[in-house]
Amino acid sequence: MKLILAVVQDQDSNRLSAQLVKHNFRATKLASTGGFLKSGNTTFIIGTEDIRVDKCLQIIKENCQSRDQLVAPVSPMGGNADSYVPYPVEVAVGGATVFVLPIEHFHHF
Amino acid sequence: MKLILAVVQDQDSNRLSAQLVKHNFRATKLASTGGFLKSGNTTFIIGTEDIRVDKCLQIIKENCQSRDQLVAPVSPMGGNADSYVPYPVEVAVGGATVFVLPIEHFHHF
Amino acid sequence: MKLILAVVQDQDSNRLSAQLVKHNFRATKLASTGGFLKSGNTTFIIGTEDIRVDKCLQIIKENCQSRDQLVAPVSPMGGNADSYVPYPVEVAVGGATVFVLPIEHFHHF
Ligand code: NI
Ligand code: NI
Ligand code: NI
Repeated sequence: MKLILAVVQDQDSNRLSAQLVKHNFRATKLASTGGFLKSGNTTFIIGTEDIRVDKCLQIIKENCQSRDQLVAPVSPMGGNADSYVPYPVEVAVGGATVFVLPIEHFHHF
Repeated sequence: MKLILAVVQDQDSNRLSAQLVKHNFRATKLASTGGFLKSGNTTFIIGTEDIRVDKCLQIIKENCQSRDQLVAPVSPMGGNADSYVPYPVEVAVGGATVFVLPIEHFHHF
Repeated sequence: MKLILAVVQDQDSNRLSAQLVKHNFRATKLASTGGFLKSGNTTFIIGTEDIRVDKCLQIIKENCQSRDQLVAPVSPMGGNADSYVPYPVEVAVGGATVFVLPIEHFHHF
């Protein structure tokens, strides 16, 4: 058994949850903030057999990998017209920080 | 030293806290959701000497073990009379998912 | 790589965050309660290379170590004058409980 601790951005959290359930992984979610990822994030605790660790990492990568996203310009409200960008810009979103930890015992009561 | 990570249902959380304190275990609680257990749940982080791991697991088992509970029927409100069950039904409550992790160092500052 | 799990008092949390960032440690914060420390506390998840574990522990110790603090007397409101202490008193604040865990794999997607 291994314990997988995955910190992912909130925007990827629901999609990752659904895919983990679909592939029979059981996860607990903790609300977390800052640090590894800039905006709000969620920490997943996933227990799994050694043989399924790679499959779990693949699912996390597919659903949370850091990627560029085109963000439509937002009209400036008030006097901030100096910083107004009138065309879509690429911003990096997503990303996951994942720790795989050894487990000495696993119990389900 | 070992780190015990226990995910338990919210309804068992206070009783488990009290029993851990009574037996001199120190725990930190994290609010968590979904996955391992259906409803709201709490993740306990417990640090303990190797020799007391079994005692801690026993306390978790005694206070959180999955069990059937008789739930009194709820009178149907509105048109849902089709699914109304006029006698108490058994539902599974409780349950705990527990990971015992090795610790390389433990510090208290 | 190691995973450092540090439970610290809320009042030390922001200062610790800032110092960790300043020294290039990346941390995720979880809101937690009770047990190890009396009042509200924060659990830090910090991933770091083996060679930097001691530096990280030093930063946690410097910013969160248990210490006595003089607390100014609060005027009694209503009938509680019996327990009123008319001079500053020392109370213990801070403190950190820290676990260093081995990691089998670390991934950043
Ligand atoms: Ni065991
Ligand atoms: Ni040490
Ligand atoms: Ni790997």
